[in-house]
Amino acid sequence: MGEVMQGAGVSPGVGFGPVRGIAGAVPEPDAGSRHGGDPAAERDTALAALEAVAADLEERGGRAAEAGNTDGRDVLNAQALMARDPGLADGVRAKIDDGVAAARAVFEAFGVYREMLAGAGEYMAARVTDLDDIRDRAIARLLGLPMPGVPESAEPFVLVARDLAPADTAVLDPAQVVAFVTQEGGPTSHTAILARTMGVPAVVALPGATSLSDGTRVLVDGAAGTVRPDPSGEEVAAARAAAAVRASALEESTGPGATRDGHAVPLLANVGGPKDVEAALANGAEGVGLYRTEFLFLDRATPPSDEEQEEAYRQVLEAFPDGRVVVRTLDAGADKPLAFLPAPGEEPNPALGERGLRMMRRHPDVLSAQLAALARAAAGLTAKLQVMAPMVTDAAEAAYFTAACRDAGIAHPGVMIEVPAAALRARDLAPEVEFFSIGTNDLTQYACAADRQIGGLAHLQDPWQPAVLDLVAPAAGAGVSCGVCGEAAGDPALACVLVGLGVTSLSMSAPSLPLVRAALVRHTLDECREAAAAARAARTADQAREAARAHLPGLAELGL
Amino acid sequence: MGEVMQGAGVSPGVGFGPVRGIAGAVPEPDAGSRHGGDPAAERDTALAALEAVAADLEERGGRAAEAGNTDGRDVLNAQALMARDPGLADGVRAKIDDGVAAARAVFEAFGVYREMLAGAGEYMAARVTDLDDIRDRAIARLLGLPMPGVPESAEPFVLVARDLAPADTAVLDPAQVVAFVTQEGGPTSHTAILARTMGVPAVVALPGATSLSDGTRVLVDGAAGTVRPDPSGEEVAAARAAAAVRASALEESTGPGATRDGHAVPLLANVGGPKDVEAALANGAEGVGLYRTEFLFLDRATPPSDEEQEEAYRQVLEAFPDGRVVVRTLDAGADKPLAFLPAPGEEPNPALGERGLRMMRRHPDVLSAQLAALARAAAGLTAKLQVMAPMVTDAAEAAYFTAACRDAGIAHPGVMIEVPAAALRARDLAPEVEFFSIGTNDLTQYACAADRQIGGLAHLQDPWQPAVLDLVAPAAGAGVSCGVCGEAAGDPALACVLVGLGVTSLSMSAPSLPLVRAALVRHTLDECREAAAAARAARTADQAREAARAHLPGLAELGL
Repeated sequence: MGEVMQGAGVSPGVGFGPVRGIAGAVPEPDAGSRHGGDPAAERDTALAALEAVAADLEERGGRAAEAGNTDGRDVLNAQALMARDPGLADGVRAKIDDGVAAARAVFEAFGVYREMLAGAGEYMAARVTDLDDIRDRAIARLLGLPMPGVPESAEPFVLVARDLAPADTAVLDPAQVVAFVTQEGGPTSHTAILARTMGVPAVVALPGATSLSDGTRVLVDGAAGTVRPDPSGEEVAAARAAAAVRASALEESTGPGATRDGHAVPLLANVGGPKDVEAALANGAEGVGLYRTEFLFLDRATPPSDEEQEEAYRQVLEAFPDGRVVVRTLDAGADKPLAFLPAPGEEPNPALGERGLRMMRRHPDVLSAQLAALARAAAGLTAKLQVMAPMVTDAAEAAYFTAACRDAGIAHPGVMIEVPAAALRARDLAPEVEFFSIGTNDLTQYACAADRQIGGLAHLQDPWQPAVLDLVAPAAGAGVSCGVCGEAAGDPALACVLVGLGVTSLSMSAPSLPLVRAALVRHTLDECREAAAAARAARTADQAREAARAHLPGLAELGL
Repeated sequence: MGEVMQGAGVSPGVGFGPVRGIAGAVPEPDAGSRHGGDPAAERDTALAALEAVAADLEERGGRAAEAGNTDGRDVLNAQALMARDPGLADGVRAKIDDGVAAARAVFEAFGVYREMLAGAGEYMAARVTDLDDIRDRAIARLLGLPMPGVPESAEPFVLVARDLAPADTAVLDPAQVVAFVTQEGGPTSHTAILARTMGVPAVVALPGATSLSDGTRVLVDGAAGTVRPDPSGEEVAAARAAAAVRASALEESTGPGATRDGHAVPLLANVGGPKDVEAALANGAEGVGLYRTEFLFLDRATPPSDEEQEEAYRQVLEAFPDGRVVVRTLDAGADKPLAFLPAPGEEPNPALGERGLRMMRRHPDVLSAQLAALARAAAGLTAKLQVMAPMVTDAAEAAYFTAACRDAGIAHPGVMIEVPAAALRARDLAPEVEFFSIGTNDLTQYACAADRQIGGLAHLQDPWQPAVLDLVAPAAGAGVSCGVCGEAAGDPALACVLVGLGVTSLSMSAPSLPLVRAALVRHTLDECREAAAAARAARTADQAREAARAHLPGLAELGL
C-alpha cells in the first residue's frame, strides 16, 4: 500500500484501476538522418510500419462500430485508407532510395500531402490533424517511441498526464476511463471541465502524478482530491461504499432546486449547443443558465447564416418550454480567434485583451445579426429568452449592450459579471440591465491575477478565495436577479455559500446538478447565509471551505 | 488652423513644433529578387548605399561628440566601421554576381555576419542589434523607404508614432523632442512613462495621430490631452503663458509634501538605480518610494554578485540620510525573462503568470541573496530601508515574505498591493507586514481585466475608474501605512484624491513631484476627502475626474 498523494479534487466520485500514462508528442526526426545503406530493407521497414498503423486503425474502427459508434468507425477507416495510399508509399520509397532514413522519409513524404491538404479549403484542412496522427503513429513505431495520444487498454484505466489538451481527449471513450489524474491544471482547467461533463472522477494539480508507473493500481477520490497507489481491498470497498451512499442520495434528488425551507433556487445547465440538451434534461435542469454560442462560429471562414443561428437557438429554446434559456453572445477574442473577426493586433495577454463585448463593439454587425437571430428563434415559443454579454467592465458597456438588445427586440438583456470592476460597481451596472450572471472562473482569474491555464497557480485559482466571495456579494446584492454560471456553481458546498450570498440561480455542467440539488435541499437558507458569512470571515480559501462546512451538516450525508 | 484633436494627456506641459513621424520596420527584401542583368551597376549601387550609411553614422557621431556624448560617438563610429567592412562588401559583390538584387544581397551578406555574432558570446551577441540597424538603413536607402528609427531633424520636433517601443527611444535626444504624440498607448504605456521621466509633454491614444503629415506644425497640450494642427500665433502664446503660470507656481513648490492644513504626505521618487538619484534630489524627493531592482538582473546570464547588489543599494540609501528608501525585490516573470531564472513553462498570459514573488518562491536563494545584500547595504546608514515584495495575492504570501525578511535582518517588510484580491483583503494582509504600497498600474489592469499594452483598451486602464478607487480605499484603511507608487500618484488631482482615501505617501517619476507638491499644498485634507468621496460616487472614470475637480479649486491656479 503506497502513500496517499494529495491533489485538488475537481470532479467527485471514486475510481479504481491501473494507471495509463498519455504519451507526449512524437518529435520530428532529424532532417539529416540517413539509413545504413540498404534501401530495400529500409523500404520494407517503412512500409510495414505504415501497414501496421493502418491495420491498427481498422481494428479500432471495428471496435468503434461494435460499440455503435459508426461515425468513429468511418473516421478511423478513412485514416487507414490514407495510411495505405499508394502515392504516399511511392514518396517514402523515393526518399529512402535517396538515402533518407525510414522515419525521416515518412515525415517528409507526409509533408507533401500535408501542404496540399492545408491549402485545399476548409474541409480538407481539417483533415491535416488526421494525417499528422497517422504520420506520428508510423514514426513512433519506427523509432520505438510510445504511441501518441490516449493509450489503448484492454481494461478500463486511470488516465494520467501532465495535463490534458482538448486534442488528447477528443476521441476518449468514457467507458474506458475510470478517473483522470493530472500533475498540472486547476479547478477550471480543461481536464476538470471535461471530467465533470463526462461524470468521471478527477484529481488535478497532483505533485508526482507523472511519476506513477503504467499499470500501478490506484484509488482516486475526486471529492477528497486523493490518489492512493496499491490500496488494500478494504480501502477500495470503503471508498466505493461512501460513493454508493452518495449515489443513493442522488437518486432521490429530483424536482426544482430549493433549500430545505423552500427558498427556490432554479438549477440550470451550461450548454454548448443543441447536442447538450439531452444531458441537461436527464439531470433535471430547469433551464439553461449559460448557452455558449461559440460553437457556431469557430473553425469557419464566414459567420454562420442567420437561418443556421436561428435553428441552433430554437432547438435549445424548444427543449425548455416552461424554463429560461440564458444565451451568452459570442465570446470571441485573441484566445479564441475567428477567421472572420481578425484580432486588432498582437495581444501579449489575450485574457486581458479585446475579448467578448469589447471585440463585438468593433463588429456591431456580427452582434446585431446574432441578437436578431435570437429574437426570431424565440418568437412564438414559451421559453423565456435572456441574453447576456461577456466581458463587460462598466455601466457604459452594459448600457451599450442593452440598447443593442432593445434594437433587436430582445426583452431580457443582462451581463456577465466576470471582471472585478464590474462586480465592485455592480450597483452602477444594475440600472442598465435585467439580470447578472457571475462567471466565477474568469472572476477568480482576474481577482487573483492568476491564469487559469497555469498549474503552478492552482491555489490562487480557487473560487473559495475570500476575495472572490467579496466580489460575488455586491453583485448578488445589487437589486437585480443574479445567477452564477462558473464552475463554482457545481461545487455542492460552494453552491450553498453562493445562495447564502444572495445568488438567485445556479448553472453548471449537467452531471453536477443532482449533487448540488441534494446539497441545497439539505440546508435552510439561514444555514447557507451562516456558511457564507463564515467563509467570508476566513483568511484563505482552505479556511473558507472548512468554515463553511461547519455550517453545512447535510454535506456529510452525501459523502462529502 | 486645424481642428483640435483630443487624446489622453499623460505628461503635462506645452510643446510646439513640426511633426516628425517614426518609420516602421524595414521589411526583408524578397528571397527571389534578382537584378536587371548589369552586375557592375548593381554592385556600385549597393556599395554606395553602404558608404552613405557609414558617412551618416560618422556625421551623427561627430554631432554626439560636440554635444559631449563621447560614448554615443564611439558606438556610432564603430557602426560606421562595420558598414565599411571589406569582408561584408565582398559578400555583397558575390551575391550580386550571382544575380541577386542589391537589397537582397545586402540582407544576405549581413545574415552571415549576424549568425557569427549571435553565436559568439554575450557581448558580441548584443552587437547584432547594431548590425541590423546598419543593414536596415542600407536596405531603406536601396528601396527608397523611410529611414528606420527616430527621425533626424535640424530643429526640435514633435515625435509622432503609432506607439513607441523602448528600442525606438533608447537613443532619443531630449533636447530634440518638444512633445510625444501617439495613436495607441495609455497612461501607463512606455511612451507615457518615458515622457514623464524626460519631463516632455505627451498625448497618447490620439485617433488620427499617424495621419498627421511630416512637417505640419502642431501645438501639443499634455495637460489637456489636445493636439492642434497649424495653431495661430495667439493660440501658441496663450498656451505658453498658461504653462508659464504653472512653471512659476512650481518654482515656489519646495519643502516636504503636505496639505494646506499641514497634514504631512511624504513625496517620494520612483527610481531604477543610482543613476536616477540626481533627478530625484533635484525635484525635492524626500526619499524613494519605489526602487525597481530589475536593472541589476536584466540582460545577464548569472545573477549579480552580492557585492555588486550591495553597492547599487548603498548608493541610493546614502543619498537620503534623513528619508526612507522603499526597495521592491526582483519582479521577474515571463514578461521580463531572466536568463538565470527560466520561466517554469510557456505562459499564454504572462501578466497573469508566475511573476514577482510567485517566481521568487521557486528560487528562494535569489530572494534571500537579495535581502541579505539589502541588509548589508543599509548597515550603519541612517536612511530607513523598507523592502517590499511584488505580486502578492494573499495573507499567506505576505507572511512568507515577512519571514524571509526577518531571516535576512530586514526590519521593515511590506508588500505591493497590485492584485485585486490583495486590495479587497488588505485587512487580512495587514497583520503580516509593516506597510503597503499600491501599484495602481497593475491594480487597474487586473481590476478592469484590460492589458496595459493594448491601446484600444485605454479607457479601461484609467486609474480614475471608480472601481480602482474602491480597491484603494480598503488598502489605505487597513491600519498600516499605505503609499501609492503607480503612475496615479503623479497625477496632481488624483494625488489629492488618494490622500483623501487615506494614502500616507506618494511616489512618482521625479519630474512629477513639483506639480503634485503644489497641488497638495493648495488643498486641505478635508477637501481631499470630499474630492475622494465625490470621485467614488461617480459611475465612470471621466465623471470621477470631473467630480473630484469640483472639490479641488487650487488646481486652476496651476493651469490644470
